[in-house]
Amino acid sequence: MRAIDLNSDLGESFGAWSMGDDAAILEVVSSANVACGFHAGDPAGILRTLKAAADKGVAIGAHVAYPDLVGFGRRNMDVPSAELTADVIYQIGALQGLARSVGAQVSYVKPHGALYNTIAHDRRQASAVIDALVRLDPALKLVCLANSPLLDWAQQAGLACVSEAFADRAYTAEGTLVSRARPGAVLHDAELIAQRMLRLVNEGVIEAEDGSTIALQADSICVHGDSHGALTIARTLKDCLQHAGVTIRAFSQGQSS
Amino acid sequence: MRAIDLNSDLGESFGAWSMGDDAAILEVVSSANVACGFHAGDPAGILRTLKAAADKGVAIGAHVAYPDLVGFGRRNMDVPSAELTADVIYQIGALQGLARSVGAQVSYVKPHGALYNTIAHDRRQASAVIDALVRLDPALKLVCLANSPLLDWAQQAGLACVSEAFADRAYTAEGTLVSRARPGAVLHDAELIAQRMLRLVNEGVIEAEDGSTIALQADSICVHGDSHGALTIARTLKDCLQHAGVTIRAFSQGQSS
Amino acid sequence: MRAIDLNSDLGESFGAWSMGDDAAILEVVSSANVACGFHAGDPAGILRTLKAAADKGVAIGAHVAYPDLVGFGRRNMDVPSAELTADVIYQIGALQGLARSVGAQVSYVKPHGALYNTIAHDRRQASAVIDALVRLDPALKLVCLANSPLLDWAQQAGLACVSEAFADRAYTAEGTLVSRARPGAVLHDAELIAQRMLRLVNEGVIEAEDGSTIALQADSICVHGDSHGALTIARTLKDCLQHAGVTIRAFSQGQSS
Amino acid sequence: MRAIDLNSDLGESFGAWSMGDDAAILEVVSSANVACGFHAGDPAGILRTLKAAADKGVAIGAHVAYPDLVGFGRRNMDVPSAELTADVIYQIGALQGLARSVGAQVSYVKPHGALYNTIAHDRRQASAVIDALVRLDPALKLVCLANSPLLDWAQQAGLACVSEAFADRAYTAEGTLVSRARPGAVLHDAELIAQRMLRLVNEGVIEAEDGSTIALQADSICVHGDSHGALTIARTLKDCLQHAGVTIRAFSQGQSS
Repeated sequence: MRAIDLNSDLGESFGAWSMGDDAAILEVVSSANVACGFHAGDPAGILRTLKAAADKGVAIGAHVAYPDLVGFGRRNMDVPSAELTADVIYQIGALQGLARSVGAQVSYVKPHGALYNTIAHDRRQASAVIDALVRLDPALKLVCLANSPLLDWAQQAGLACVSEAFADRAYTAEGTLVSRARPGAVLHDAELIAQRMLRLVNEGVIEAEDGSTIALQADSICVHGDSHGALTIARTLKDCLQHAGVTIRAFSQGQSS
Repeated sequence: MRAIDLNSDLGESFGAWSMGDDAAILEVVSSANVACGFHAGDPAGILRTLKAAADKGVAIGAHVAYPDLVGFGRRNMDVPSAELTADVIYQIGALQGLARSVGAQVSYVKPHGALYNTIAHDRRQASAVIDALVRLDPALKLVCLANSPLLDWAQQAGLACVSEAFADRAYTAEGTLVSRARPGAVLHDAELIAQRMLRLVNEGVIEAEDGSTIALQADSICVHGDSHGALTIARTLKDCLQHAGVTIRAFSQGQSS
Repeated sequence: MRAIDLNSDLGESFGAWSMGDDAAILEVVSSANVACGFHAGDPAGILRTLKAAADKGVAIGAHVAYPDLVGFGRRNMDVPSAELTADVIYQIGALQGLARSVGAQVSYVKPHGALYNTIAHDRRQASAVIDALVRLDPALKLVCLANSPLLDWAQQAGLACVSEAFADRAYTAEGTLVSRARPGAVLHDAELIAQRMLRLVNEGVIEAEDGSTIALQADSICVHGDSHGALTIARTLKDCLQHAGVTIRAFSQGQSS
Repeated sequence: MRAIDLNSDLGESFGAWSMGDDAAILEVVSSANVACGFHAGDPAGILRTLKAAADKGVAIGAHVAYPDLVGFGRRNMDVPSAELTADVIYQIGALQGLARSVGAQVSYVKPHGALYNTIAHDRRQASAVIDALVRLDPALKLVCLANSPLLDWAQQAGLACVSEAFADRAYTAEGTLVSRARPGAVLHDAELIAQRMLRLVNEGVIEAEDGSTIALQADSICVHGDSHGALTIARTLKDCLQHAGVTIRAFSQGQSS
């Protein structure tokens, strides 16, 4: 029986500013990447998101980031290793505390934005993040970009990894994401996206931008909930997968890489 | 056998800015109130302080504060209750995570600065802080100003409280602190301070500013380590107590109020 | 010929978070209170708002606030006087710099949120804000709550003041705002609001919550643009005033109190 | 008659945290690079520094930085151009406002830390900073690393540039700074430093790490005041230069490149 996880970013409001529709996306996903206060999320807002996720039985991950509120964690930052490790532990710990207070728990870590992209390939920063999980709790799973060297580095350190695909992104023939700077990098056709992801789940392959077929092992698929269009894509994908007999289930409840 | 706890604020450096002499004060105290990032403390610096405290066998408390870096948590802030509760849980959780990563644990909570002074008397904000501990972990002890209503409120909520005296502060005939705005509020004579505290430990009383003798039950005495003079006071106090046969021991290892 | 100013808060987005519809409200108002980065507004976003305001010929004011991003400047904060004065100068200076870079200028200052409410009645903080304007540029006008003591304090210091009424708020028989904590404090009926403000402009009076008629001298009326309902109220008010022959004109272009 | 400027970083305290000895270094330098709040400096502290600099007749520059308090502006950050330009204008404007309030003025801009190093060679970010000065006030001089491409870029944009040497740094045979990561990059011998700088002023050359003599045109020499050793170096340098007949004078009062 085939199963896949759907994950999305939640808890990204901040104080008086709201972002995304957490209630709507919680109806779709099986895993919630919850902001930890460094790129988004204030404690009271994070707590509301955690309660809502726990009520829905959605798995909770720490969406750790660079300390960059004004840049929403999307700016590359050259954070020294010891500081990056401590920053990541601090954020996970804070989220664990908030989760514990509502009877929930944090089962995985997914770095956000520029940190996610950087550690997929940069060994120094990757090691700093891996160290954080190893020191805090090696049972925490790490969500990694599919086909990235991070998967190996994290597994060598003893971590359980989750290989992640992006529903609305084009892939290169080498199996990595087409840069957002290039045309066609982001897909918008909900039906096409759903069919690509169904094939990915069924066959472990995806069509690259040059038409070639590439192998892509994924434990989780990232979807978005920050716009009407994004929600439509996420819902269409979920419907398509379920109608094809695929179970939507948090990876944290099953096997990981 | 008489015993008392000595506590002090640590981990209050921030990034490139240093404050206090954590190594020196750790030689004196039995409990370390460690900054949690809201009034002071960056994650990497906090982590170094936690390691040093753990190495010394010093008990660790979460020194939670208002979100006020530029004011060092000394400004009164009218934080709504739900937000204050979440802020406190977030800070304790972050410190617990960092502590866990070095094999240590957080055993108590001491609010900092304006938050400490406010909740000693303000029921709404006191309740918000108490709620945070109750929801996160009711085994966490709360350090309260001796003779303040906070002690009752916290105990009624089921928390174990620690009643705290201040070594270098004058007391009113009502048993509370003389406002810093008044002359004589802060004491500087190390020998006098030591004798006052020894009497407090032995007899449960202290001489007020008007010469009267007042009852003051204290489980812990707050000392400072942020200047040469403060360290001298702290060391003199410890020597005096130990020579008189008083054991310096973390309240978290003994009975509390 | 009668004239009145309409003012509203703008530039309150922050990084990835948007707030309000600056383009829409700029079609309505004659004065824009632009966030300065302490409660809202990042420099690039502020700059876009300033350009848009300048293009429309809308007067620009510095919407200075407490340093409180997470609380959106709505939390009372006990900021020492010297620090408050410097904070206000810093914010006005930053906005003046951004304005100058697009060929515009800052003509007035309107404190935001908790700072606005506090200085209406608190002499110490009021003096700190007044000092900021006197030291930086006494030609800057200060927007003050109508009927508040701040008006006198600022005028005694030599500042030109703007007396401000709130379109969507109920007034007490004493001529001040009904607290938001009380039912009926905020009005929602666009037609009623427009008629109240028209009477205010024509007769200098407004009906208080107890039905009595009170004197209220206003140079400017505050409207909001952060929701569809708020925009409707603002547009209805402007239409009503203009159809009655009232000119909508920035106070900074005319006489002030 | 030969003249040179000595500059140093000031106003880098933040809230309760102090850094450097502004009073002592103001006795030495002719130009003060004053923090603007992004990497260091709170408004009240900045204001005190500006007053002290103005009292001494020391020229004032805006020490603009990335928004990175916890990293003290030393972390490389990939800030988009429009945001970087606005950040720089915001900081200069804020400092200009504070300076104006004490009767002083900002005559130049010196980027700090990682921003300084990055724009010396990175054209995109350099252009963003140059744009900020051009848009705000093209009369502001820009302090640039001697022999860096930034000098040409800024001059092509019509800015007056100040070419800067570092008293305590070793130079490569190519005329640039030896990386701090390499041994010998930082010099500590006050006499040696003074002789190197005297030769630089007199002959326009400096000895590189490989013993070769390289050309280095400098309008200003950077010294430090954040430690006893640094102050000794700065004072020794000033004495040496003055005894050799060199006038210490702000570049902003003379010719620039």
